Formats: sequence, C-alpha cells, structure tokens
Amino acid sequence: MFRSNSGESTNVVGKTMKRVDAFEKVNGSARFAADIAFDGQIYCALVIAEKPHGILRSIDTVLASEIEGVEGIFTWRDIPGENQLGEAIKDMPCLVKEGEKIRFWGDVVAIVAARDRISAENAAKSVRLDIEDLEPVLSIEQAMEDKVQIHEGSNVRVSKRIRKGDAETVIKNSKEVFEGEFYAHYQEQAYMEPQGVTVVPDFDYGYTVYGTMQCPYYVQSAVAHVLGLPINRIRVIQTETGGAFGGKEDIPSYVASYAAVVAFNLKRPARLIYSREIDIQTTSKRHPIKSFYRIAMEGKKIKAIEIKAYMDMGAYATLTPIVMFRTLVHAAGAYDIENVNVDVYGIYTNKVPPGAFRGFGSPQVLFAVESMIDDIACKLGIDPMELREENTLRPGSRTSTNHLIVESVGAPETLARVKESSHWKDLVRECNEFNRINKDKKRGAGLSHIFYGVSLGAGGQALDKSGAHVLINRDGSVEVRIGGTEMGQGAKTVIAMIAAEELGQRIEKILVHQPDTAFVPDSGPTVASRTTIYSGNAVRQACMALRGKLVSVFCDLFNSNPDSVKFCQGEVSDGEDRTISFDRLVDTAYVRNVKLFEAGWYDTPKLSFDMENGLGEAYVTYSYASQVVQVEVDMATGSTKVLKGFTAHDVGKAVNPDGVIGQIQGGFVQGMGYALYEDLKLRNGKIVSDNFNTYIIPTIHEVPPELVIDIVEDPFREGPYGAKGIGEPSLMPVPASVANAVSMAIGKRVRQIPVTPEYVLGLIEEKTD
Amino acid sequence: MFRSNSGESTNVVGKTMKRVDAFEKVNGSARFAADIAFDGQIYCALVIAEKPHGILRSIDTVLASEIEGVEGIFTWRDIPGENQLGEAIKDMPCLVKEGEKIRFWGDVVAIVAARDRISAENAAKSVRLDIEDLEPVLSIEQAMEDKVQIHEGSNVRVSKRIRKGDAETVIKNSKEVFEGEFYAHYQEQAYMEPQGVTVVPDFDYGYTVYGTMQCPYYVQSAVAHVLGLPINRIRVIQTETGGAFGGKEDIPSYVASYAAVVAFNLKRPARLIYSREIDIQTTSKRHPIKSFYRIAMEGKKIKAIEIKAYMDMGAYATLTPIVMFRTLVHAAGAYDIENVNVDVYGIYTNKVPPGAFRGFGSPQVLFAVESMIDDIACKLGIDPMELREENTLRPGSRTSTNHLIVESVGAPETLARVKESSHWKDLVRECNEFNRINKDKKRGAGLSHIFYGVSLGAGGQALDKSGAHVLINRDGSVEVRIGGTEMGQGAKTVIAMIAAEELGQRIEKILVHQPDTAFVPDSGPTVASRTTIYSGNAVRQACMALRGKLVSVFCDLFNSNPDSVKFCQGEVSDGEDRTISFDRLVDTAYVRNVKLFEAGWYDTPKLSFDMENGLGEAYVTYSYASQVVQVEVDMATGSTKVLKGFTAHDVGKAVNPDGVIGQIQGGFVQGMGYALYEDLKLRNGKIVSDNFNTYIIPTIHEVPPELVIDIVEDPFREGPYGAKGIGEPSLMPVPASVANAVSMAIGKRVRQIPVTPEYVLGLIEEKTD
Repeated sequence: MFRSNSGESTNVVGKTMKRVDAFEKVNGSARFAADIAFDGQIYCALVIAEKPHGILRSIDTVLASEIEGVEGIFTWRDIPGENQLGEAIKDMPCLVKEGEKIRFWGDVVAIVAARDRISAENAAKSVRLDIEDLEPVLSIEQAMEDKVQIHEGSNVRVSKRIRKGDAETVIKNSKEVFEGEFYAHYQEQAYMEPQGVTVVPDFDYGYTVYGTMQCPYYVQSAVAHVLGLPINRIRVIQTETGGAFGGKEDIPSYVASYAAVVAFNLKRPARLIYSREIDIQTTSKRHPIKSFYRIAMEGKKIKAIEIKAYMDMGAYATLTPIVMFRTLVHAAGAYDIENVNVDVYGIYTNKVPPGAFRGFGSPQVLFAVESMIDDIACKLGIDPMELREENTLRPGSRTSTNHLIVESVGAPETLARVKESSHWKDLVRECNEFNRINKDKKRGAGLSHIFYGVSLGAGGQALDKSGAHVLINRDGSVEVRIGGTEMGQGAKTVIAMIAAEELGQRIEKILVHQPDTAFVPDSGPTVASRTTIYSGNAVRQACMALRGKLVSVFCDLFNSNPDSVKFCQGEVSDGEDRTISFDRLVDTAYVRNVKLFEAGWYDTPKLSFDMENGLGEAYVTYSYASQVVQVEVDMATGSTKVLKGFTAHDVGKAVNPDGVIGQIQGGFVQGMGYALYEDLKLRNGKIVSDNFNTYIIPTIHEVPPELVIDIVEDPFREGPYGAKGIGEPSLMPVPASVANAVSMAIGKRVRQIPVTPEYVLGLIEEKTD
Repeated sequence: MFRSNSGESTNVVGKTMKRVDAFEKVNGSARFAADIAFDGQIYCALVIAEKPHGILRSIDTVLASEIEGVEGIFTWRDIPGENQLGEAIKDMPCLVKEGEKIRFWGDVVAIVAARDRISAENAAKSVRLDIEDLEPVLSIEQAMEDKVQIHEGSNVRVSKRIRKGDAETVIKNSKEVFEGEFYAHYQEQAYMEPQGVTVVPDFDYGYTVYGTMQCPYYVQSAVAHVLGLPINRIRVIQTETGGAFGGKEDIPSYVASYAAVVAFNLKRPARLIYSREIDIQTTSKRHPIKSFYRIAMEGKKIKAIEIKAYMDMGAYATLTPIVMFRTLVHAAGAYDIENVNVDVYGIYTNKVPPGAFRGFGSPQVLFAVESMIDDIACKLGIDPMELREENTLRPGSRTSTNHLIVESVGAPETLARVKESSHWKDLVRECNEFNRINKDKKRGAGLSHIFYGVSLGAGGQALDKSGAHVLINRDGSVEVRIGGTEMGQGAKTVIAMIAAEELGQRIEKILVHQPDTAFVPDSGPTVASRTTIYSGNAVRQACMALRGKLVSVFCDLFNSNPDSVKFCQGEVSDGEDRTISFDRLVDTAYVRNVKLFEAGWYDTPKLSFDMENGLGEAYVTYSYASQVVQVEVDMATGSTKVLKGFTAHDVGKAVNPDGVIGQIQGGFVQGMGYALYEDLKLRNGKIVSDNFNTYIIPTIHEVPPELVIDIVEDPFREGPYGAKGIGEPSLMPVPASVANAVSMAIGKRVRQIPVTPEYVLGLIEEKTD
C-alpha cells in the first residue's frame, strides 16, 4: 500500500514522538508575533468605521496628529499600489476612500503610526470620521429582499449547485418525504494569539513581513499588490503562530497590508498587533448558514435529497466563493444517494465578513443533514445507527457529486468502531432508563457520521501543490523548510518525522524552520487539512533524492549493492557489517562535492469536475468520521453537559499518532464550543461579545471525562505512508452528535446551533409537533 | 565552444549592463554591516594582548566592569564550545587562556559588551593583562634560527615543493645561470568597510550572523564550533560588503566567533565593528615573501629554474598552507620550462598572521620571476618581449607542475596585444630618448607576463563546488541566491545576467539576493576568482531546468516544437507568430502547479595531482595577462609616477565586459599601490601605520592618464559561455611591470616592493654592479 525507506517497518513514522516544538513553547522561549521587535519600529493602530453602512464623507486627522508620539496617519492616498484586497473577489478596499462606502463596523479607514502602542490607539480614537448613514442590512432575509444593496447589483452575489440524478421528480413522486430547516450561527476562531505582524524594510531592498499567519503566500501577494512592487521584493516569514483555525488564512493579508503602507511611507519597521476586541470585531468567523432540507426515503434507503443553503457572507466576499464549494459538496453528508440537488448562495450583509474556519463551510450543513437523518430515523422508528450503516459511503460508492470512490473509504469501519466503543444500543437504553427515572435532568445519546474532502479539491486545483527545501549540512544536521505552516497543529513534528524516516537521520538533528516565502515558491495555503499530504510529500521527495546521493557515496566507499543500503536512526549500513554513521557519510559526501540540498515538490493529481452541475471528482480523497456522544440536559436551566464521547476517524495513516489524537481532542472541544456555548452577539452590526468574558469558549472543565478515540487507517495511495487529513474532520461531527443527543434528551428536534440554554428552554416549552 | 539558450547570439551576456547594485550603492541606501541595527543590541570591543610574545598570567576585569554601561566581560571561560580557530591548522585560540601564550600584538584575550561602543572600548582599555614577556621573533631569518620557538616544534611549520625534470643537474651543467634575491613586503587589503558583524539569537532557536564577509560557510562552521552547536543552528547572512580582497576570507570567522560568545551568553544581538586601527593591527595582510631564484638559459630558452620562497606566516598558520600552494604553482611564471624545482616554506613569527589577498601568494613570486626574466633579457641583450614570446605557455605547453594545457591558453595573444597597443619598441625607444635628454627625471618601460590558476585547484578540490537557489514568482519576478558573495567585484550583476540569459527574462525582474547559508549548502569560499564559473554554472543549471519546464507549458499551450522555443527579453516565442510574455507564461505554469524553483549545483572536474612532488593538474584552467607600463622616476626624490599602462587579459569570456574592465582598472591601481606606495611599518611587532594617514594607498590622482585594456576571449569549455576568472589576475602583473619599468628608468635592478622613494634613492646611490 505504501513503502517507507526501510521497507515495511518504519524508523519513526507511526511511532510516538515528542513534539519538536514542545520545549520552546512550554518554557516560554517561543517567540510569537508580539514577542519580536525591530530596531526603530513604530506602532500602528487602525481607525475603523464604527458604523454598519454609510458613505464616508471626510476624515479629520487634525486632533489625532497633535497627540504626543504620533509620527504619521495614513489613508488611501498613501497607498503606492492598488487600494484593493480580497482573496477570491477583489471587492474590498484596503482603506476606504472619501465618497465611498462603509459596509461594516470594522471597515478600515486609516492607520495611525506612533512611538508606542498607547499613543497610536489614542490617536486612532481621535480621528474624526464623517459618515453619512445608510440603512444597514443585518439579516440574510433582509438582504435577499434586495431593497438596500450593499455593493452594486444584487446582494445575492455568488451561488453554486449540484444536479445529480433527478431529485426534484423523485421527491415529488415519493411517499416518504421529510423536511427540515436549520440554522448555524457564527463561530469565532478564538485563537490564543491575536492577529499581528511587523513589516520591515529589509537590506535586500524590499520588505519582509513577520507575523502570525497560515498562508504566507497570500500575504506576499496582497502586500506586493498594495505596495505596487514585484513579488520578489516582498518576503514573508511566519513567526510562531498561536492558533489559527482558518482565522489566519486571509486576514493576515489585510493586517500586513495596513502595516506595509506604514513601513513603506516611513521606511521603518511597522508593527501592528490587534487587541482582542479589534480582532473579534473586524476579522472573519464561521459563516452563519440557514439551510432547508427535503429528503425522500424508500424503506431504509435515502432516495433523493434537496438542499438550499444561504450563507451570510457579510460585507465582502473574502473567501466565501471558496468556502461555498465545500458547503456544496458536504451538504448531503457521507451517504450514497442517487438523486441530489444542492443550491448554495452567498449573500452580502452589513456585518463582519466570515471566512475560513476549521471545517470551512461544512460543519453547518453536516449539522443539518445529520439532524435530518436522525429525525428521519426517529420518525421511521429505525435505529439511527442502522440507517447510517444502510446509506453510508463505502468502497464503490458515489458521493453527492457523483465521484466514484474506490480506495481509502473507511466510513463503514468508523461507524463500526463507535458502535462498538460506545456500546451504542446499551448507551441508548441507559439514557432511556435514566430519563424514565429522572425529571430534572435528561440524558441523550447522539450519533453523527461525516466525510471530509481532503485538500483544496476541484475548486482550488491551481493552489494544490507544495514545495520543500531540504539541506544537509556538513555535520549531518538537516534543515527543512516547507511551504506549509505550523500553527499549533503539529506540522513541524510530522515533517521532521517524515524527513527522519526518509533520511534515517536522528530526529534531534533535523530542524524544521519557520516558513519563509523566499525558500519555497507559492505552495498554496495551509488549510484544508492538506499539510501532511502536500508538504509531507514534497519533503519526502527531496529526502529521497538526497538519500539516493548518499547511497551512491556509501556504495562507492564499501562497494555495496545499492538495494541493500538502509538508513536508520543515524546509521547507514548494508546489512553485511558495513556501517557508517549518517554524519560521517555526509562528511564524506561533502568532501566529494556531492550536492546535498534539494527542492522537493508535490502537486495534486488532476481532478475532473463539472462546475456548472457540481459533478465529478470534488477532492483527491476523503477522510471519514463517526461519533457518539452522551449528554445530560438540566431541564430547569436548559444547560447541557457532554458526559461521554466516542469518536472514530479514518486518517489513512497516523504519521504521528499522538499528534492525530491531539487534533481529535482539540477538534472535539472546539466543536463542543460551537455546539453549545459560543454565542456571538451583535447590536446594529457591531459585535458586542468581543472578548472572552462575553464570548464563552469551553474550558478544561467542559471536556467530557470520557473521550474514546479510535484511529482507522485505510491508506490513501497518494498520501505519505497512506496519510490523509485530520485537522478539520476532528471538529466536524461534533455539532451534529451533540445536537442529536440533546434532541433525544429533551424529546424535541434541535434545529440550531449553538444549543444555548435559552434555546433549549424555548424548545422544552414549545408545543410538541 | 559554448551555447547560450538562444543559440550563438546571446540576450545579455557579453553586452554592456548597468551594475544591478549600482543605484543603492550610489544613493547611500545600501546597508553595510554597521548600517544595520537590532532591537536590544549590545556593543562589543576586544581586549587585545598588546605584546608580541609572552605568557598570559592573569586577566583583571575589576576596573573595567565598573565602567558605566558595561554589561559583561567574556573570556575563554565563557566559550560554550571549542576555544579553537584556524581555517587550515587549528593553532589559534579564540580567546587566549591564562597560562598560555600570547603570540602577537593582536591576540584576543577578552570581549567587553556594553550599552554603547564608547563604553565598550573604554572598558576594553581598562582590562589589565599581566603578561610575562618572552623574546619576540620578528623576522624570517630570526625565526629560521629556531632559537625561540613560537609554537611547539620548529618555526618552519609547513612547506611544499615541485620537482619537475632535473633542475639541479641542468643548472649545475649550464653555462648561462642567473641568480636573484627578491623581497615583497606586506600589503594591507585596505577595504573601505572594516570588519564587522552582529550575531543575533533568532526566533528559529539558533543564531544568525549578519556581517561583511567573503565566506559565509567558514563563518558558519567557526561559530558552530565555538558555540558547540550543530550547523543547522547557525545561519550566516552577508550584508553588503564594502570590499574584501581576501581580507574577509577567514577573518570574519574570528570576528563572528567573538560576537557569538557575547550573543550566546547574553542572549542579545551582539555587534562588533572594528575600528580601522584594530582592523589593520589585528587582521590578515599579504604575506611578506623572500625568494631566491636561479635560472639556466640556453640561448633564448629557459632550461631550468630553481626557486626557494620563504613566507612570513606570522603567529598562526591561518590560511598560509593554502596560500602556499598558489605561491608554489605560480613561482616559475607563465612559461614552459622543462626543469623546475620550487620549495616554499611557511614560517612562524610574532607578527600579525597574513592570509588571503587578491593573488593569494602569487604576486610576490610573479614579481620575482618577472624581474628575473627582465634582468636576464637585459643581461643577454635580448628584447624582454621577445624572451617572453619565446618561452610563454601556449596551447600544448606544460606548466611548472607539468600540467598539459591544450585549450583556452590566451597567453601568446595577450603578449601580442600589449606589444601592439603599447607600440613596445617605440615606447622603449621613446624612454631611451627621454633619458638621454633628461637628468632629473628618468623614464622606463616595463613588461610583465603572468598566468593565474583559476579557482581552488588541486589543493582545495573538496571546496570547489557551488550551489544556487533560483525561484520564479507567479508574477514572473525571479529570485536568485548563490553560495558565492558580492563584495564589490560585480558578482550580483554577472549572476543576474546569467539568469536573464538563460531564462530570457528582463534583467530588471531578476533579484540576486544577499547570500544566506540557509538557502544553499556549503559552496566553498568566494575567493580564487571562481564566482563566475562556480556560482554562474550553478545558476545556469537551475535556470536551464526551469526553462525546460516553461518550454513544456509553452508547447502545451501552442502545440509548438520544443526546439523552436526561444526566451528573450521577457518574451517567449516559437518563431512562428506564437508569442507570450514570460510573465504570462509563468502565471500559466503556476495555475498548472508546475514546480518553479530549482536547486542548482556545479562541482569541479576532478584534478589529478601528486602533492609530494607538486606535479599534475594544479588548476582546472588558467587565466593569462600581459602588461606594459611606462613610469617616470624623479631622480632627486626617488618617487615614481606611472604614466601609461597597457594590459591584456585572457578571461575566456567577458560575461559582463564593463565589470571585467572595472576589475582590471581596480586591480591595476591596487597593484600600483603594492608596487609603489603601501609600506606597512612595524615597531616591536606592533603595526604602527594603522590608518590611512600613515599607510598610503593610491588615490585617483595616481591613476595613469592612459590605461589601455584589452580583453582576450579564449573560451574555457567548463566556464559559463567560456568565462574564466579575472578578479585576481587584474592585480598580478602590476608589481612586476612597474618594478621592471623603474629598473629600466634608473638602470638598476629593483629587488623589492614596494619601490618606495627611499629604496629608489638607495639604489641610485649604490655602486653599479
């Protein structure tokens, strides 16, 4: 299925490893964006609109510029290049111009630069904006009326669809049709480290951006565009990044562009670190999605599905057209359904533009489809486990986009695993028992079953590639640089393990450096759970080339057969007593002038996809997960507690099993936050829950005491050692399993997330359907 | 002979180009080592021995550490790794230990770190060293007596020899034997920018060294050694370098090691910038060489030559064992001689250790051998031009090491060119005319003829390689990084031209970045006039691979024949109306996920050489030069003025003709300084002419009004487009041509350089032989 350098058994892959970045992160020596400083740096603060909709009439900087320490206030006039941002559609100004529109509370109008942060922030508050108010559009429904248009043309700006089989006719002719309406609210990424960059005029006559981010190439391209410089004058180096979750996909491009305008004009390092409030108020979230489902059943078989999903994309398109592709493909769930109609719409409102967030437009619809399946099982009196077993994708199935999947389809296995680990039938029985006895508290068991298209897929093929730069020093120490980023997910450890595996060098001698655009060309974004496959394969390719060179030197030294040479844990041998340390072999190669650096590359197999009808190979492969949770609802307060979790994930191959488990644990908890606690409040388009005192995320106390994790390894041919992705699928089943468990507990169908106490109490008080 | 991407004619190679780094260097925005600053940096100053020879008894830092602003004083105890330096032989401590030896005035004992430079320097002066004096050894002769030994064992530490044919017997049996003794003094490199580095603890958990240097890999390895860290924790980035001339080959390794000790101990950026005085007093120079020649003639033919050369290598071996190889190979000059005996010795003295300097041990002996040839011509009454024509190396000749040279031997041509340009016979006649009429001033015409082994040769084969990292961005802008360095010689321009040539991209879109060890593995030193060949070939290889990828995309787009595709000045076409801009073709390639970065490499063809007898292929190829100068000597003051220069150089191919001319002009002037003005004065082992008020280098006023430069292009198969080296051969013929011209003017044989007025007056007053 897959081959490592040492044949079947591997050196380090699949073994338990300490995180390579653990020590520095634990002892505090790791330096995040705000921890680095540059000689002569200046502090920046943003002047934001603080109105949801209007026309910017004037910018008055007189008062602000008199504040002690202020060294400059910069507006659109100071932008040397294009005053345009936006990853998918360039509909967003970098700095709003007088006479043009304010479209959300956080629109940026000016940047203040001062000697220190406090002065910069005070001055930013003293800039007076004259904004002529326009009626704000604050809901999907209001936006769809199109009475007030936010940009030129309809507020319904983008749409995508799937037309597989003939869902309309099948549903019309079906006797068993089920319907449902669902709503998933915003979720804030809530990374520990807020947005932050420093842009430094460098001695190579360009600008270097240092900052917390996921996608250095997006930043590079945005800054080049805003400064009007060729890309070779812009270098982007990611500093240690304290969490991202999609929230640092496109946003750092904006943050860096603001700071770059200052650095360009003052020719000094410009530092812009967001406060938590500015970060929550102005940066992306998970999209609110309202969805409508109709499903036709024939016995236990799903015959047809029809879905309409409406995404609130806020004031600007940002990544919505891309997020939407994933919403589209995942809306019908992990099932083999013959007839599928899906329509997804992206709608402008005068609110913060949502964007990327772990799951990328799929958790909202997976919550909906899994709630539907659960509801149907309930109504038909079928065990929801059985209904899923009946309809799940399996080898030989076709997905909602008609993609025939033959290998690495672990879905039946993940279902079987959670059925077993949770003792599903007993768990359901136990809940029913409990509920019969108790009135104040009710328990429920909820099931969910999902799939996840790994990497960027048909909608992002032009980005699906990755490079690596691997260099062996004369002392055998190895340096690895990749196009992907470490943001806490463990990429550095996986990459170090792959290099150690292929080179047979001890992992302590392998250093995976912070990403730097100068080493590796545009490798696409670090998103879509693609780093292990893409950067991993690129590193593997480079290391295999290097190993080949070292094999030649070894054979030249010892007259061995190349096929017999093994590299393992810092030793190279031919199995016949001829052994040399890796370091000495490298030294010998150096003296012989052997080239010991390589540029590795991996690009995606070409996918065939019809965008018009949403049919074809949507993604290179899919990860699968099944999950059972047990919850307890306090019927007096409406609050929900997760008691147990059982989750099984087909990851292809766990290169670093501890890392995979860590991802699953983290994703589970973040998913719980989405399902139960995280309730973003807006008032007139302004986010008012803008810090963690009002925006509540789960803590260690909410983690269920029992969380059983099963890793299924159904290898993916193209993945390194068979690996697929795990970053996002870790979160995706949680909202649905929790919502279904709450539904069972209270005997009412949960139709929105977060399942707040207020919402639960409302449901309890509702008349039964 | 060589092929460019566009067949015979080239895009940019061989054309006149503006230096790519001209603008920033002229407008002052270029940032040299002292122009960069880091947040929280600390200033360092060295505590030096200030005694030529002794035992260090104690280091008293009490007074110094009380000086305001001092943050630390570091001695050998603070070195975490090895207290050892030295490129060839590790005979030099980084910081001298109590109880051990002081071996020259500039031995470093401690480093003071303080808040500012003045405090650091004041504190350094306040450190009290108790040194028990030993008798200093201050001359080659005294050292050879070996009464006082500087290291353990004899002061005659290293030697090399050539034994070709049977020079001894031929000379013994010859009737026409000529003898001569010559002395070439120190020469200071006199780069504009003194030594300087800052060592910065970086956020990748290692140390980055920024500084002025030639050889980042030497620095990397030395700092790793002194800090006891693997090489992947040490990164070296060369800042703009204001001249080097060999003086920044090994010295920056020492400078960086001192600063690294401070950075390591304080975990802060440590900056160490040398004053001119410290720089001249403590860093390397051209070796003083005393040489003895015996030559046997048969008619106009040189039959045998016997040479003994004694190099003063100062207190430590540093690069002497390597410099010596070049002295050895070049000592017999650019002539085809059957019987050659050469012995070169390296001798310890209690003086500053000389090291690398443009010509690297060869100008001293080329001055000697060319003086000998001139003297023989004089004595035999043969035209010195004719004598050289008779004996010069030519295709099919064998060098002094018995290296059969068949291609790219432009020596007869360079002779022919200067004969023609200088109107040699007329010039000699004109001088004689002048001298007949004038008493106060005398004129002379001098000729010299040299060869130069390009690159490191047989003595440095394990270093003769170079890497390149070439990356094309999505907008078609190109980034090039090489293992070689720009130090003012024009490497960046040549490299940009080669990339532009091979990629057919406009040169404005090609950025050659400052060298950084992280991109390219150990590429050897930037010395030995090897950058155009080595880095050039590596870049060429990478660009050719990239072009191949773009050709495929082009053919895929237009269905063209790959052989027909031409890249020129930013356009790509197949000669049949199908044309696309380079930038658009690159964008298309990006969308198709084509890998657009490459790791290029070039290593040297293996040379066969017998080190025991000094026989074989000493270098991959040789550059050649012939030169005529006319001087005028003031017989009252002894001062000499160069009136005219005619110089012809076989460079294989002038990739950048303006750059080649610039090198020749610069080399000529620096050679004049060596020949006439630069007179380093020592007192008790201390260099007292330690700034430019006492150490006199030529200015624009000394440049002869007429300097005729001829470029001969006899292509070298392995060189890019046929190129060989020019950096050093530009200087090498000058001392000899000037000395010979002065000899003719005053009618006395000049036997030492510099030919100072005092020396000339002494010669004039001497009795005729």
